Amino acid sequence: MSQSLRIALAQFDFPVGDVAGNTGRIIELMHEARDEYGADVVLFPELAVSGYPPEDLLLRPGFLDDCEQAIARIATEATGIVAVVGWPQSAGAVVYNAASVLRDGAVETTYRKRELPNYAVFDERRYFDVDPDGGNCVVQVNGVQVGLVICEDLWFPEPLAGTVAAGAQLVLVPNASPYERGKHAQRDALLAERCAASGVGIAYLNTIGGQDAVVFDGASVVADGDGTVHPAAVAFAEEMLVVEYNLQARSFMPLRWIDDGDESMDALAWRAVTRGIQDYCRKNGFGKVWLGLSGGIDSALVLAMAVDALGADNVTAVSLPSRYTADLSNDLAVEQCRALGVKLETVPIEPAFQGLMQSLSAMFEGQAADVTEENLQSRSRGVILMALSNKFGGLLLTTGNKSEYAVGYATIYGDMCGGYAPLKDLYKTEVYGLSKWRNTVGGAPVIPPAVIARAPSAELRENQTDQDSLPAYDVLDGILYRYIDQEQSRQDIIAAGYAPEVVERVLRLVRISEWKRHQAAPGPKVSRRAFGRERRYPITNGYRG
Amino acid sequence: MSQSLRIALAQFDFPVGDVAGNTGRIIELMHEARDEYGADVVLFPELAVSGYPPEDLLLRPGFLDDCEQAIARIATEATGIVAVVGWPQSAGAVVYNAASVLRDGAVETTYRKRELPNYAVFDERRYFDVDPDGGNCVVQVNGVQVGLVICEDLWFPEPLAGTVAAGAQLVLVPNASPYERGKHAQRDALLAERCAASGVGIAYLNTIGGQDAVVFDGASVVADGDGTVHPAAVAFAEEMLVVEYNLQARSFMPLRWIDDGDESMDALAWRAVTRGIQDYCRKNGFGKVWLGLSGGIDSALVLAMAVDALGADNVTAVSLPSRYTADLSNDLAVEQCRALGVKLETVPIEPAFQGLMQSLSAMFEGQAADVTEENLQSRSRGVILMALSNKFGGLLLTTGNKSEYAVGYATIYGDMCGGYAPLKDLYKTEVYGLSKWRNTVGGAPVIPPAVIARAPSAELRENQTDQDSLPAYDVLDGILYRYIDQEQSRQDIIAAGYAPEVVERVLRLVRISEWKRHQAAPGPKVSRRAFGRERRYPITNGYRG
Repeated sequence: MSQSLRIALAQFDFPVGDVAGNTGRIIELMHEARDEYGADVVLFPELAVSGYPPEDLLLRPGFLDDCEQAIARIATEATGIVAVVGWPQSAGAVVYNAASVLRDGAVETTYRKRELPNYAVFDERRYFDVDPDGGNCVVQVNGVQVGLVICEDLWFPEPLAGTVAAGAQLVLVPNASPYERGKHAQRDALLAERCAASGVGIAYLNTIGGQDAVVFDGASVVADGDGTVHPAAVAFAEEMLVVEYNLQARSFMPLRWIDDGDESMDALAWRAVTRGIQDYCRKNGFGKVWLGLSGGIDSALVLAMAVDALGADNVTAVSLPSRYTADLSNDLAVEQCRALGVKLETVPIEPAFQGLMQSLSAMFEGQAADVTEENLQSRSRGVILMALSNKFGGLLLTTGNKSEYAVGYATIYGDMCGGYAPLKDLYKTEVYGLSKWRNTVGGAPVIPPAVIARAPSAELRENQTDQDSLPAYDVLDGILYRYIDQEQSRQDIIAAGYAPEVVERVLRLVRISEWKRHQAAPGPKVSRRAFGRERRYPITNGYRG
Repeated sequence: MSQSLRIALAQFDFPVGDVAGNTGRIIELMHEARDEYGADVVLFPELAVSGYPPEDLLLRPGFLDDCEQAIARIATEATGIVAVVGWPQSAGAVVYNAASVLRDGAVETTYRKRELPNYAVFDERRYFDVDPDGGNCVVQVNGVQVGLVICEDLWFPEPLAGTVAAGAQLVLVPNASPYERGKHAQRDALLAERCAASGVGIAYLNTIGGQDAVVFDGASVVADGDGTVHPAAVAFAEEMLVVEYNLQARSFMPLRWIDDGDESMDALAWRAVTRGIQDYCRKNGFGKVWLGLSGGIDSALVLAMAVDALGADNVTAVSLPSRYTADLSNDLAVEQCRALGVKLETVPIEPAFQGLMQSLSAMFEGQAADVTEENLQSRSRGVILMALSNKFGGLLLTTGNKSEYAVGYATIYGDMCGGYAPLKDLYKTEVYGLSKWRNTVGGAPVIPPAVIARAPSAELRENQTDQDSLPAYDVLDGILYRYIDQEQSRQDIIAAGYAPEVVERVLRLVRISEWKRHQAAPGPKVSRRAFGRERRYPITNGYRG
């Protein structure tokens, strides 16, 4: 008879800061893993007790005390199973990103993360220390030597190699790794390499759920000692995953494993954003959302996403027509709401706009109309939408995309109003791509094809189109992708074939709209370089390269 | 004859990102130090080439290349003097926070910072590495062994001790240390200790100037080898400072040293904020500013600061009365503008408010008035002020204080509109204190005493005062200071004698207004814990402690 270990991976959402709730949930899941699935070991995600990332909550002594009490409380419930639980461990003046092994009602040992990411969205060196006397963690469970490393540790050779050298025959890796398009392939390649090099199996558990500007995708995975990576578990969904590890074969057999049906890039991006909307609302106490529906593609896409995320009953679209709004825009808004079963309210902005102009009439006397009047229309809409949110409750979604945030083609305190920005990390060309993809998924189109086909316009003056002010979107996005996501210089981009004067203009727009992005709502990271905590630029910036 | 060295400390502003401008300025100042002051050595601040902090510009390969070319260009001009110039040095995949010693037209050696701050407003480990083969830097100038450490290095014993052990008889320390109330005393105590322990003199140069949410204060200082700390140089002003270091006595003699006339806490805070306003405007191309003047203390203080910062001609106040505005408010606005020689415009908000209500009339039918209508007034004001800024140019200053930002007693997209928030890091009680202090400085009061004396009110409904919604400000600020600046827990604060239900309510307000602060304009750090990059809280946050 070959020796084996039954491992449960608790792929669940542990909301940031909710120490009391997370403690209860961990205990419940620990008992479920033991009683329903007969697991020998249950693994929880990185910092499950505090949620990830707790940010500056980690600077509060009271918060750290609460986490310490939580792990002690969880430990008392860890009987008949071994649990591995992540928490921030305070020790005198320093704090560790730790995971404790709980057994027989007590903390048996605690592992401290060795590699602390401090790039991209991560700031772990702001909070955590590396323990110079730390080192490997290997515990025996049912005769199997089980090692433990945390997240970033796996991306460096030493922690795993050291753990295996210390005797580990299987390594558990709790993670808090945000969704990013294309990251799974990288991760799987790493797992294959690490397993093949070490000869041990790895069980990789990732947390799930939206947290402000990131969405953790779960999609946990196991990889055998010969480098075989099993299909990832479902992304963006909570599941208890159970596998059996065969010590002799160094391989995993799934017992309760929910595969992901669709791992296409578009499907995952869609689910990242909809999960982001869902969790932002749920965790912040919003049962419903509002959005302005213009008849253009951005708001149409956000509407479709919001309906997928929250259900049609919890979404109210608002049409805010002005004298410049085409009949087609109004018709398309009606058509989409009818198709989706969403309530559509209409609030004409003309009285608001006229009232503002009347207040300003003495000051504006003799002045020619300019972008000010365009902004006043956008701000009338923003203020009206906020008033609806104030009066009736519910979160206002803002509908700008990454291209607009990049070049400031958005009115601050106008269409930028709102608490959450679903498209913030999707360029306009990606907005088109995702809209088209969603319409192919089955059933009637959720975004009217005419919305996708028409020329984009802010409709803030007669016969306006976006391309009056901006290069064609494929050109714009090409420049932006190189400049923002790839950090190319102006010279690099020109060398790639873009017209110097266009590049110059776009880069200038990116620079002078930094102040707007600093005042922007959060939205879910999808790309390798999302605006916000992943791209921290000075507003006051003399660099022109 | 005793041996001595003449040292110039270039206490100047090197704007972030302006590599070309900084390069020219460094060369000019280097030659000035040589030709006008006969200096043997000229010291420039930390990262003078890039400005501090360059943030994610440091992730741009092109930016790093430009900095490298800049230092090479500066080196060619370094003849007849030794220059120490800070810059971000890229070396393969890593970047160092470096300072190069330039002599005889070339880079002689380069020191790499050993202690990288990654707390509070600092993120240096996001960008920089420590060179494991780095170590001490000591160069001989005119027979004196001159050592070099950078900023944070000084706060740890080893770098200085190692540098002295390596032979340094004098140590130069370039810094980029943001103003924070009370920090000078700490710094001077450290210098006294380090000098007394090592027996060498230290020349400490700090950069100056506003950069988004921080203001560097200069206030450079020298300390003799016996621990005597000389009076600090002028704060918040650009000066070439020149001292003679006597090797035998290990002591400094000032040759060109501009003392600071007034180092009182209030004076420094005032100058920090006014310099912040000045530099934000200048570096971002704004010649003038707008602000809404309500007759209350916050906007009155901002007006006085703006006039000190930019001159009365460059400030336009706007009175935005509504039906709820007391006559006294209008009168006080007029009185202050007359006293300061500032142009006052009046834009009644009633038409704007009525227009918005008319747009919303169908939706709001049968609904009772609530905070929505209050917000609509505030947003009418915000939109009008932005329209003035759009139409006529100029930056809108927003007038909220730290107490308001803390508890969300401010309307997002309303009175929070604006590009820069001078009072962002001053609690309401400090707003009163600073207003009273400014009126004692001489001349006629710049803030009408009646503004200071009256009860604070948002004037958004009949007979409203702030204390209808909030505890008395001394109580509120007491709780906030403990909770925010000192990280005390709810229990700690209650134990300090505050009523549990008041503490509970205030902490809840702080938590639920996090999303507003994420969308707030930057303002100058004054305290130990400023909102913004120094206090990074999740919006989605289940913590209640």
